[in-house]
Amino acid sequence: MTNTLIAPPRGFEISEFEARTEKLQARMAEQQIDAVFLTTEPEFRYFSGFKSQFWESPTRPWFLVVPASGKPIAVVPEIGAAGLHQTWIDDVRSWPSPRPEDDGISLLADTLAACATRHGRIGAMLGPETHLRMPAANFAALQDRLSQHVLVDVSLIIRELRSVKSEAEIAKIRFACEVTAAGFDYLLEHLRLGMTEREACKAMHLEMLRLGADACPYLISASGQGGYDNIIMGPTDRELGNGDVLIIDTGATFDGYFSDFDRNYAFGRGDALATRAYEAVYQSTEAGLSVAAPGRTTGEVWQAMWDVLEQAGALGNDVGRMGHGLGMQLTEWPSNVPDGNVVLKPGMILTLEPGMTFAPGKMMVHEENILITEEGCEMLHKRAWSELPVIS
Amino acid sequence: MTNTLIAPPRGFEISEFEARTEKLQARMAEQQIDAVFLTTEPEFRYFSGFKSQFWESPTRPWFLVVPASGKPIAVVPEIGAAGLHQTWIDDVRSWPSPRPEDDGISLLADTLAACATRHGRIGAMLGPETHLRMPAANFAALQDRLSQHVLVDVSLIIRELRSVKSEAEIAKIRFACEVTAAGFDYLLEHLRLGMTEREACKAMHLEMLRLGADACPYLISASGQGGYDNIIMGPTDRELGNGDVLIIDTGATFDGYFSDFDRNYAFGRGDALATRAYEAVYQSTEAGLSVAAPGRTTGEVWQAMWDVLEQAGALGNDVGRMGHGLGMQLTEWPSNVPDGNVVLKPGMILTLEPGMTFAPGKMMVHEENILITEEGCEMLHKRAWSELPVIS
Repeated sequence: MTNTLIAPPRGFEISEFEARTEKLQARMAEQQIDAVFLTTEPEFRYFSGFKSQFWESPTRPWFLVVPASGKPIAVVPEIGAAGLHQTWIDDVRSWPSPRPEDDGISLLADTLAACATRHGRIGAMLGPETHLRMPAANFAALQDRLSQHVLVDVSLIIRELRSVKSEAEIAKIRFACEVTAAGFDYLLEHLRLGMTEREACKAMHLEMLRLGADACPYLISASGQGGYDNIIMGPTDRELGNGDVLIIDTGATFDGYFSDFDRNYAFGRGDALATRAYEAVYQSTEAGLSVAAPGRTTGEVWQAMWDVLEQAGALGNDVGRMGHGLGMQLTEWPSNVPDGNVVLKPGMILTLEPGMTFAPGKMMVHEENILITEEGCEMLHKRAWSELPVIS
Repeated sequence: MTNTLIAPPRGFEISEFEARTEKLQARMAEQQIDAVFLTTEPEFRYFSGFKSQFWESPTRPWFLVVPASGKPIAVVPEIGAAGLHQTWIDDVRSWPSPRPEDDGISLLADTLAACATRHGRIGAMLGPETHLRMPAANFAALQDRLSQHVLVDVSLIIRELRSVKSEAEIAKIRFACEVTAAGFDYLLEHLRLGMTEREACKAMHLEMLRLGADACPYLISASGQGGYDNIIMGPTDRELGNGDVLIIDTGATFDGYFSDFDRNYAFGRGDALATRAYEAVYQSTEAGLSVAAPGRTTGEVWQAMWDVLEQAGALGNDVGRMGHGLGMQLTEWPSNVPDGNVVLKPGMILTLEPGMTFAPGKMMVHEENILITEEGCEMLHKRAWSELPVIS
């Protein structure tokens, strides 16, 4: 019975936000940074606990300021003030938004300037895999207003803090993963020849919601005779027929935390090449699992997985990496890449995502979600089937 | 029977992408802009037809370049090349990503420089309600590489183009709206005293997916004795009891296009103040419907709605506007604001969202989705119930 999955508690203890903030402030002190401002949903939520689907609306910018000590300060549109008062934040400053001529910029600049009187250094997310969620013209205006201050990148600090998960975070991700695994098992029983990709994904979507996922922001599929040529499009109305291989890759969420893994299914008969590719990629994951441990690097994990694929005759890999961090976002830092030098630590959650082009236009990709433990790593959900399942 | 909703065709004719591109190019010619580059999902999709849930991953930047004439050029991570070849785009340039030291910046700069030899002017989304989906440090690097060129804002042009919807776009939004209205009707029959907000939202979520929505990226609720104090948080595990008023506001999608409206429900008994507020806000929407027409402004629509609310004793409105554009995003330009000077045109899709604080900490907000027609406007779905429904 998959209906017995037990969801962990929602939300976090205030001590968790205190610890996150203090860790950032310790790193800020090292670099003589007086204040950091954040504009994107995951970072805003990480330090404030503010969780709202309203980020779906692109109209208004939102800002969170982390000073050198004490609680963060929210600088938000009026529509958000009541929601912010439900969090651990005390200091909520708001303006009537939308107000294109000054959408929070003067209020943010004043707040930052008042915080940054010691060293005059202000941190922001400027580096790889980030963006500023505010109009570029407004960021330029902010820089003008703060021209006496130095703006420094804090993205490397924050991605490192976020990469190590707390027990409460791990519980949420584990539950999202268990729901996802149960959804894939459900599909194994309910997929039929002649179904479309879209029907398969819809069945999976409904089942994951029934089982307790809050949403499923990522649910793609690809299929083709003997293999598929991409892993980021679909689902389409393509009917699944004899000789097809289907991949479904999904990221379900629980309380703002993601799963992200995939499963492959053959239809009618197991194409010989695809079956061999499946076995190779399964063994590649095994190699990744045996290497992923504290002290090992993302490059070593990549190499262990790639050695198996190369041995199996891989023609290449267009994905650019073989797994990544996972948590508040579907994909997070770090990436498992050749020569990757990020050292794994207990508490990191990663995907292992070996994949290869095994014939022109045909890929095979697996993905599993793991937790780095003190001793090595552990799966956060049931492992993929060791053989490519065949749907009749 | 709500199960008979018929979904319109997915995707668009190529002529639609040609028309969108040519309209942009005509506006570029007026301003002597040689090329425009786009980084965000809606704009990338609007001109390319590339529709993928992979934007959920923040790791890699994606760029679309619209030259002065001819088809757009995609500058994308390798993982996206196969998907781009399914669109009307011919020229797909890719790099192995993630590559933090140069994540597409040199390729983008070379592409733009080759397109921008005539006037040296390059357009980007820099203005209100936008952001650049690329690291700020990379945008600075791009500006350095293009220091011989002038960068100009095209956000005002593009929001104007996008605000007038085609027949095919209207059909998608109408279907999303019909599914949403049917979901609210379903709730009217299935809500019960003692349910939690979360259970109510989950029932609505499942029903909208069953009825044909692809997803429901926005589904919030708020409730309280005699009213609620915000419209952007929740759902919570709060149980709905005697005297409560519940609002659910949702944006469901079909083929990449949104609905966005809400419904209010009373529990046990209709609180007198809330019932009066409901009637006032209902009449406020009526006033908006009677004014919304080609040639009228967003300010006039706001004023017509506000006059009714003020007459009814509104204490204020913390939302900052009373409705907005709707389409590929949950909220789009323009906003219905005081003195708003955007002139309505046939083909625009708007929400009418009158709301007021009618007692301290108690709001009443309604929302409906309308199409501006040649003669006036039409509802895209069934109108709200004229009286606050009471769930027993």
